[in-house]
Amino acid sequence: MNYALRQQKLAAELKRAGVEALLITHVPNIRYLCGFTGSSGALLIHAGESGPKSVFCTDGRYIQQAAEEVQCAKLVISKKPALIEACTRAQRAQIKKLGFEAEHISFNAQHRLADLLRGKTRLKAVGNLTEALREIKDPEEIEQMKAAAALGVGLFRSALSIIRPGISEAVIAGQLELQARAAGAEKMSFDTIVAAGPRSALPHGRASSQLVPASGFIILDYGVILAGYCSDMTRTVHMGRVSGVRRRMYEAVKEAQMASIQAVKPGVETGAVDRAGRQVLKKRGYGAYFTHSTGHGVGIEVHEGPRLAKGQKQKLAPGMVVTIEPGVYIPEEGGVRIEDMVLVTESGHEVLTPATKDLIEL
Amino acid sequence: MNYALRQQKLAAELKRAGVEALLITHVPNIRYLCGFTGSSGALLIHAGESGPKSVFCTDGRYIQQAAEEVQCAKLVISKKPALIEACTRAQRAQIKKLGFEAEHISFNAQHRLADLLRGKTRLKAVGNLTEALREIKDPEEIEQMKAAAALGVGLFRSALSIIRPGISEAVIAGQLELQARAAGAEKMSFDTIVAAGPRSALPHGRASSQLVPASGFIILDYGVILAGYCSDMTRTVHMGRVSGVRRRMYEAVKEAQMASIQAVKPGVETGAVDRAGRQVLKKRGYGAYFTHSTGHGVGIEVHEGPRLAKGQKQKLAPGMVVTIEPGVYIPEEGGVRIEDMVLVTESGHEVLTPATKDLIEL
Repeated sequence: MNYALRQQKLAAELKRAGVEALLITHVPNIRYLCGFTGSSGALLIHAGESGPKSVFCTDGRYIQQAAEEVQCAKLVISKKPALIEACTRAQRAQIKKLGFEAEHISFNAQHRLADLLRGKTRLKAVGNLTEALREIKDPEEIEQMKAAAALGVGLFRSALSIIRPGISEAVIAGQLELQARAAGAEKMSFDTIVAAGPRSALPHGRASSQLVPASGFIILDYGVILAGYCSDMTRTVHMGRVSGVRRRMYEAVKEAQMASIQAVKPGVETGAVDRAGRQVLKKRGYGAYFTHSTGHGVGIEVHEGPRLAKGQKQKLAPGMVVTIEPGVYIPEEGGVRIEDMVLVTESGHEVLTPATKDLIEL
Repeated sequence: MNYALRQQKLAAELKRAGVEALLITHVPNIRYLCGFTGSSGALLIHAGESGPKSVFCTDGRYIQQAAEEVQCAKLVISKKPALIEACTRAQRAQIKKLGFEAEHISFNAQHRLADLLRGKTRLKAVGNLTEALREIKDPEEIEQMKAAAALGVGLFRSALSIIRPGISEAVIAGQLELQARAAGAEKMSFDTIVAAGPRSALPHGRASSQLVPASGFIILDYGVILAGYCSDMTRTVHMGRVSGVRRRMYEAVKEAQMASIQAVKPGVETGAVDRAGRQVLKKRGYGAYFTHSTGHGVGIEVHEGPRLAKGQKQKLAPGMVVTIEPGVYIPEEGGVRIEDMVLVTESGHEVLTPATKDLIEL
């Protein structure tokens, strides 16, 4: 990964934000900027005149890991908490305006820093600068995300061989997760959703002890983390023969999902992508049952920018990877959701999760 | 669960902290105080003269779930973010001093609230009041924690039948997690640690793609969440015949762990529990290799108060559930850690994870 380039881009943003240096405490941002994959540390990036200078501070538990992983930053192993160590170094470097990640640092931690710095170095809240950079994936990231997405697609095929009436949602999830581990995933990117029968009408139906009924929809929504990058996809299948009512539900969601995917290209507002699918569902009479937004960015975190929701004005750009995941949830009938990961390309888009969307009756 | 009693106790603390009401945003605290298990909401507890009055705010995604789960609080489903809705209600109730959870709320979120309230209701940072109550488990919680711990113990037996040379750490973890799901666990309480051979020398060796060697220690450190309560335990086994050097390591850790457990009783400082085990390891020549603290509280979160570490003065009290988990890590030889969950009783302690600690050679 090109950490030097990422830090250069961030340094340019720091100047615009009116700070000389930024204290980075959000773990996914630390990973993005210097490669450290542990769960505790602080990165200080100083936007120097002749290019960024960075210091990564962590504690003794991570000596070996940090030495192997951290790039483009001086490594400091400290007995002090990493945040305090990084702050002390900012002060010693006579930084007058130090930015901090105001969405990620707790109220108390910020006050502890302000007390520590008292006067000499002034703290300034800054927005999600690193997150904004992370929205556009670079070529190496796109390769990683394709690999993670492909692993997810493979798991869907295994899941189909596991599902049968009488098995619990939790055991389906456990089997899927075991397959993911066996295929090289570090872990799942979020709590696996397996929602069968009436539970498919819950948009957030985490796998429970409920057994799969002889008839009804089953929503499978899951993702893996492979080499630090998340996948996220959803397919809905049906146990037994599907009724006409449910087939119409399914086909409407599929049509909506494909309409939103078709709308994905550079320069299009994310709100327009949401609208494309939402209009299909309205026309088919399901408008009131699509109760969430269309999607979100994916990357080091499973939920990142941009948001694909009603009224959003942000424009898609090449290198973004977003989910497209409309759903319809009807208490008596159950629910249907179909989700793909879609890469925004120079000319349009590429679906990274090409598992079949034909309605499967098991 | 006796939510009314918990809210009463919290209300008494609010008066001591000099606030009329508290805005609770930390999800485990919300669950503890009103039973809601979803991931988004805000609970406003007003320490009224005639007992606490509570309002729980969440959004449309949780209508059904909140209606089923929330107790001892008025339920408000709002289109506004829950935090804003709860704040608006505090203002409408003419609360003059409103506490917020300063360790949990972000710097930016606190500023948004302060802007919203401007003048009429003053915000005041308060410490971890609910966390302090949560340290002492009530009888119903102790029953749940015993069940979670027992599930964990059962998994250790299954794990022994899975481990063999050539299987990957990740597949051992996946099998363990599948068994946990099948036995009713909601999920794991943290990323499962399976650290084999040289990786056993890493105190945080999350299961990787590394294969189990023919000879060496394997550390298994895992926990389940059952009905909302976490378990946490560690056992170390050895592949093949163990050398004299490694057997001495193992026996020293076992002796240290049992010495710390023996020290657990009401009124003892947590630092003294740490010291009891640490002294054994020092005497046996392993002092420098025990690089972390002895343990932590467990409950709704896998890491809670109290901390069992060097110099800690907090006193143990009946109803606390803590881990005792010394370890020794030597780069050439590997590592050994043994961990139990221990309940502090009126007269001493009870080990909740009675899996064997005899050295197992597989």
